[in-house]
Amino acid sequence: MYVSMSRLAIAPERAPALIAAFRGRARLADRASGFIDLQVWQSDRDAGEILMVSRWDDRDAFKAYMKSDAHKFSHDRIDPDLKADIALLRLEHMHTYDVVAE
Amino acid sequence: MYVSMSRLAIAPERAPALIAAFRGRARLADRASGFIDLQVWQSDRDAGEILMVSRWDDRDAFKAYMKSDAHKFSHDRIDPDLKADIALLRLEHMHTYDVVAE
Repeated sequence: MYVSMSRLAIAPERAPALIAAFRGRARLADRASGFIDLQVWQSDRDAGEILMVSRWDDRDAFKAYMKSDAHKFSHDRIDPDLKADIALLRLEHMHTYDVVAE
Repeated sequence: MYVSMSRLAIAPERAPALIAAFRGRARLADRASGFIDLQVWQSDRDAGEILMVSRWDDRDAFKAYMKSDAHKFSHDRIDPDLKADIALLRLEHMHTYDVVAE
């Protein structure tokens, strides 16, 4: 199993709009080969810290989705104002992991 | 749903020992009320970056486990040499989240 985790920062008062956008997402990834699930986590200490966590069968499935038109379409439909409000917590905001124990 | 994520750093050559310890864990949390699952994620860019992610029904279930004898026992059985090798990536190494969208 392979995990992609994106760390996003947003002003706490804009967090509900970001969460609403995730809840209304196009769900195109869900149909991608090798997709397992996607969750959005909000820190209970800092409402502006949001993690988007998706799990995949393996790295190849994730890579294929990232290069797909479905991924491009999903990102293109994010509201530009909301996009502008999202800061990346680090220069390299996406982290990827192998699941090594359960 | 509630998530606890601990970020651990270890020398890459010691990572296999840490992962082996997780695989051989006592699995006491699994019997705790409100426990959903636990996974260990290893960065595929930095073998020494390990995340321990556990999911719970809610914050109360997690808090109750953290105060339990089962949690203390689980931590006490970690090899002291291994424990000494684990650095905390930040001063505050444990992060907790509410699952706000799926």
